[in-house]
Amino acid sequence: MNDRNSVSKAPKRRRNEIVAFQGEDGAFSHTAALKLRGKGIRTLACPSFRDVLGKVQTGEASCGVLPIENTLHGSVHENYDRLLEYDLFISGETSIRISHQLIARPGVEFRDVKRVFSHPVALNQCKRFFERYPRLEAVPYYDTAGSVKMLLEHRLSNAAAIASQAASEIYHGRILKRQIEDNRQNFTRFFLLTKQPLAISGKGPWKTSLVFSTPNEPAALFRALACFALRDLNLTKIESRPLWGKPWEYLFYVDLQGNERDEKVQKAIAHLSEMARFIKLLGSYRPTP
Amino acid sequence: MNDRNSVSKAPKRRRNEIVAFQGEDGAFSHTAALKLRGKGIRTLACPSFRDVLGKVQTGEASCGVLPIENTLHGSVHENYDRLLEYDLFISGETSIRISHQLIARPGVEFRDVKRVFSHPVALNQCKRFFERYPRLEAVPYYDTAGSVKMLLEHRLSNAAAIASQAASEIYHGRILKRQIEDNRQNFTRFFLLTKQPLAISGKGPWKTSLVFSTPNEPAALFRALACFALRDLNLTKIESRPLWGKPWEYLFYVDLQGNERDEKVQKAIAHLSEMARFIKLLGSYRPTP
Repeated sequence: MNDRNSVSKAPKRRRNEIVAFQGEDGAFSHTAALKLRGKGIRTLACPSFRDVLGKVQTGEASCGVLPIENTLHGSVHENYDRLLEYDLFISGETSIRISHQLIARPGVEFRDVKRVFSHPVALNQCKRFFERYPRLEAVPYYDTAGSVKMLLEHRLSNAAAIASQAASEIYHGRILKRQIEDNRQNFTRFFLLTKQPLAISGKGPWKTSLVFSTPNEPAALFRALACFALRDLNLTKIESRPLWGKPWEYLFYVDLQGNERDEKVQKAIAHLSEMARFIKLLGSYRPTP
Repeated sequence: MNDRNSVSKAPKRRRNEIVAFQGEDGAFSHTAALKLRGKGIRTLACPSFRDVLGKVQTGEASCGVLPIENTLHGSVHENYDRLLEYDLFISGETSIRISHQLIARPGVEFRDVKRVFSHPVALNQCKRFFERYPRLEAVPYYDTAGSVKMLLEHRLSNAAAIASQAASEIYHGRILKRQIEDNRQNFTRFFLLTKQPLAISGKGPWKTSLVFSTPNEPAALFRALACFALRDLNLTKIESRPLWGKPWEYLFYVDLQGNERDEKVQKAIAHLSEMARFIKLLGSYRPTP
């Protein structure tokens, strides 16, 4: 499962599944959805992250894709909060390299371009490009792929958009400049969310995510991490979020290597339960490389 | 020092100091500046957080105030990143309760109000108020206090703003509704930043902030926290941020109780230096209650 190369052999069930994502077709979340579930799936473009989760909750979508962290900007903290708001499970994970292309309508030359539309984060990731071409005006737009769609629909001839190569292909744009991002170490990590937890079977590297809060007392986090460290369970990520209604207390989201059926993971969680005020398992999943 | 009640006895030096903050006069950062340094100081309103830090770096301001976390929204992550970008020290800390008032021009009655201007975060913190009065249109504006200033300058008679009581007083507005925020457990914590570290003297509760990165190996964070836990040094906050250019590696910002001259703190930092790849002390300071 989750193997990109097996898509052509995807079972019928997968061809009928609907994967919700935020943004327009060609958005990075859309690329992540195809990478996670194969090119044979149907995707459902949603205006907001809440819509993505809502569609999974109501069953209108079989799963949803949510960006959770970026190697330059850090975590998408609101999406961590949403993992607790909705009763869904993490059942997949992947990361994709964020590479920005300057895209225009076919026939438009680079020298014609005066305005460049894109999502503010994407514009911000191409600062050096704008410094190099001061004649270009950066114009914030609600979505990267959506800005390509808009250019083509309105047949703009002195404008371009910053978006993915996938967006250029989908809307039949023309790439004027490739890889204009400042920093190539730009990756975004996505979670796949489902209503039911993934059935654990098969070998390979598994990961498990959970969230807990500790009593507000000295060394509480250290003792919580001991549950994992003393069993040689490796944490790959820790994120703290404020605990609502308890000023200066925190929730900790951790990702660890292993799955919920591993004896060591089960014992670590039982140990953590002895001291945590609150604990919730968010799911075990196999990363899609 | 940092005692609000001692303001009237503030030494001459303090009366000449200039404290930079982001926003307009009456913004919550302005209130924090007065709480931290006393009402006799001169303040310098800056359009962005970068401007605040820049003014301190160049010496145009003697110190700057930066919001670092909110009990509902979590950390101001970009400001954590800026603590490393600029070569400044944390030399004070305070938190203030965020309470929102509905403010209009004197003479305007609540029944006249159709549009309500404020910073998007403040509008978002008063959702229930807008649900209760569906006739009101929420209009995003760049600043809470700035929206009061604008109302009064343009003599708007069918609009109001959401801002602090201080903003109402400064611009001579009229409070139509008090404490309209959804959640009273709404506090923002601020750092005071200076070019030189604070001289450590006197008793009382001190805090120290530092940032470090660990090798990317199992239990690295656990061992780092052991430096503090094994010496009974209490951490009050931990925040992770991505390490630029090293995908999926992190910087950890921690706040601990004690100051850099405490023997236990010194030994903990020496111990941490044995294993950390990078470590930077950000300052010791006494919280202003």
